[in-house]
Amino acid sequence: MNGRQVKKASIISIGNELLSGRTVDTNAACIARQLMTVGMPVASIYGVRDQIEAIRRTLLLATGEADVVVTTGGLGPTDDDLTRQAFAEFLGVELVLHEGLLAKVRQFFDRRGIRMPERNAIQACIPEGATAIENEWGTAPGIRAQKDGKLLFALPGVPSEMEHMLDASVLPELQRLATGQAIVVRRLKCFGAGESTIAELIGDAMQQGRNPLVNCTVHAGVITLEIVATAAGRDEAEKMAADQERSLRVSLGELVYGVADQTLAEVVGEGLARMGKTIAVAESCTGGLLAQLITDIPGASRYFTYGWVTYSDEAKSRELDVPPEMIDRYGAVSEQVARAMAQGARRKAGTDYAISITGIAGPGGGSEQKPVGLVYIGVDSQEGTDTSRHIFSSDRSSVRLRAAQTALNMLRRRLRI
Amino acid sequence: MNGRQVKKASIISIGNELLSGRTVDTNAACIARQLMTVGMPVASIYGVRDQIEAIRRTLLLATGEADVVVTTGGLGPTDDDLTRQAFAEFLGVELVLHEGLLAKVRQFFDRRGIRMPERNAIQACIPEGATAIENEWGTAPGIRAQKDGKLLFALPGVPSEMEHMLDASVLPELQRLATGQAIVVRRLKCFGAGESTIAELIGDAMQQGRNPLVNCTVHAGVITLEIVATAAGRDEAEKMAADQERSLRVSLGELVYGVADQTLAEVVGEGLARMGKTIAVAESCTGGLLAQLITDIPGASRYFTYGWVTYSDEAKSRELDVPPEMIDRYGAVSEQVARAMAQGARRKAGTDYAISITGIAGPGGGSEQKPVGLVYIGVDSQEGTDTSRHIFSSDRSSVRLRAAQTALNMLRRRLRI
Repeated sequence: MNGRQVKKASIISIGNELLSGRTVDTNAACIARQLMTVGMPVASIYGVRDQIEAIRRTLLLATGEADVVVTTGGLGPTDDDLTRQAFAEFLGVELVLHEGLLAKVRQFFDRRGIRMPERNAIQACIPEGATAIENEWGTAPGIRAQKDGKLLFALPGVPSEMEHMLDASVLPELQRLATGQAIVVRRLKCFGAGESTIAELIGDAMQQGRNPLVNCTVHAGVITLEIVATAAGRDEAEKMAADQERSLRVSLGELVYGVADQTLAEVVGEGLARMGKTIAVAESCTGGLLAQLITDIPGASRYFTYGWVTYSDEAKSRELDVPPEMIDRYGAVSEQVARAMAQGARRKAGTDYAISITGIAGPGGGSEQKPVGLVYIGVDSQEGTDTSRHIFSSDRSSVRLRAAQTALNMLRRRLRI
Repeated sequence: MNGRQVKKASIISIGNELLSGRTVDTNAACIARQLMTVGMPVASIYGVRDQIEAIRRTLLLATGEADVVVTTGGLGPTDDDLTRQAFAEFLGVELVLHEGLLAKVRQFFDRRGIRMPERNAIQACIPEGATAIENEWGTAPGIRAQKDGKLLFALPGVPSEMEHMLDASVLPELQRLATGQAIVVRRLKCFGAGESTIAELIGDAMQQGRNPLVNCTVHAGVITLEIVATAAGRDEAEKMAADQERSLRVSLGELVYGVADQTLAEVVGEGLARMGKTIAVAESCTGGLLAQLITDIPGASRYFTYGWVTYSDEAKSRELDVPPEMIDRYGAVSEQVARAMAQGARRKAGTDYAISITGIAGPGGGSEQKPVGLVYIGVDSQEGTDTSRHIFSSDRSSVRLRAAQTALNMLRRRLRI
């Protein structure tokens, strides 16, 4: 690392709900991941309650072992939000009301046509000498302060607000601070095989101690391979990561659907938009989840037009022209009905593609012949209709998510992307 | 508290994967929740890397502020599993190989017909004077040790193994230790007002240092008030929590929709099922999310039959009979279209109730007159049609979630539950 001292960070998550176990602290992992991308490893993570003395003491510990401290939580307007006060005590200064910040908080409420509750004025106070960090997505501004050469950031606890602020205001500054060490992180997203199959395909790439290091995590069937390359210079680390990515892609072929944080819905949506094609969906057991995943992507209206949640048999027949006799004969959860739903949806919506899902999400409704987790998926286009049969063994929401993701993956393969 | 000191615990999560953000630490919250049930609040949570000195230092910090320390992680057989060694150093003793433990680890492999890898022998070592905790679900035994009147437990990092060991061996002992203090936790779920409005309505109930203590957290518009009552006996704590709940309910009225972990969709679903009523939904900007929330609840088919995701104008007219002239005149995002969508959905589905949502989720598509975040919601039933207009200022997925939750809340109010 060029003999230079590696700059380290410490994370403090603040909130009684973390210590009572009511809330799982997802912010710390998110911040740690982001800090890695700018080459700043995390030395320690703390969870503390909403109490001035506990926060102050932890700030002291954290600044003792790290160059940068990022806190999250405790910036709200209520009596149990005490991060501002704790920062002031740690810095040895008073809280000062900023008229400019007050105007912004007031504006936030004005835009919604609501009178600002008086207690929100506290959110316009920050420690003397500290800087406010703008929050475009909520009322709580963040705080940036310095003490004895250490840099401190207080971010809100609401994940979306925290992430935006981290990205817009904290990471750019840390990126400059962390020069002299380069960590490059790349992620490959895979779908269509299990973790052990992926591990077998990529050989010894995941062995500990290697550089680049390859880590593997699984969520809802999506396998993320994270490549972490460390080198003295950015260019070198970039090249190492790129080489590793290329080799993984060769081993994994079409199991790789994307990079970074891309979702299947995003990749499929981009493909449809690029080709100028449209899609409709017809869902039973996923109950709107597939449509929701597709429309989560900004600009989905370019390719998504119609969705049906035909939860009852009657709805399948009346909305998608599935013959009632077919449902009587084969059951609503059958290859035949999945096929008819996809064809009905495409015909009625007049789209290029249609996907259908019918299955048993559980926990009830299963039988020996048709167990909980049984799902049929159909994909229809001018090329014809494909169906597939799956048994997802897990709880209701996992079965639903796996079914929707598998449907998107079938469409991806049909689109050859 | 009858003058007795409340016994407190501290949790240390150990693992490089936590500090790189690759893994979200769910163990800490799980342990905290379980400790609460035996009346032992958690004073602090630490995340540290797999390094002997870092773990030893954190054990020192944790025993300085708590009576019981529970660590999780770092008990595996690989080189980066160093919790055993760190415990030994902290206790000032050597690691000792236990023949009995070795036989058990060997047995674990024998049962699977695998020869025990040599490196697994390390799992049969524990600090001199400490006790091994049996692990029926994996190879890593836990460790129980004492120092200066403080009690220490090392548990595995694999969540299922950790949970079993906590339950079987740690909680029973802590329950005995913590007698003389009882903690009762109750939660009230609220929707329909902001955090500061709720805080104003409940007065000083959230002030620090009170008993019962009331904590407030917000997620997607749902406000959770957690009541934590501490007393010498369980009955007394129960009564204090119940009294506090009653008083909060009086202050908050119909803002309270449920208790514990109940969701709006669950409460509305239970209400519909109880009354034998049915519901259909028609969504534009939420793109299936409302249907998904409703059908997330097991047994939703008792009351949910039809859902439409009419993302395009054409779909609104063709599927829900919204007059094209109405869309031309008022725009797809308008009070008139929300009303027509709800009425069309109820008529076509033949249900007792129908909800509609049309809006601009963003990030694009907004204008000065119709900004991003503008959402109209309609609720239709035999009693008539209500609509409401909202501006949710946040990112795309938050706007969608707030819109869907607000729609469920409108239905809840219509159902008078």
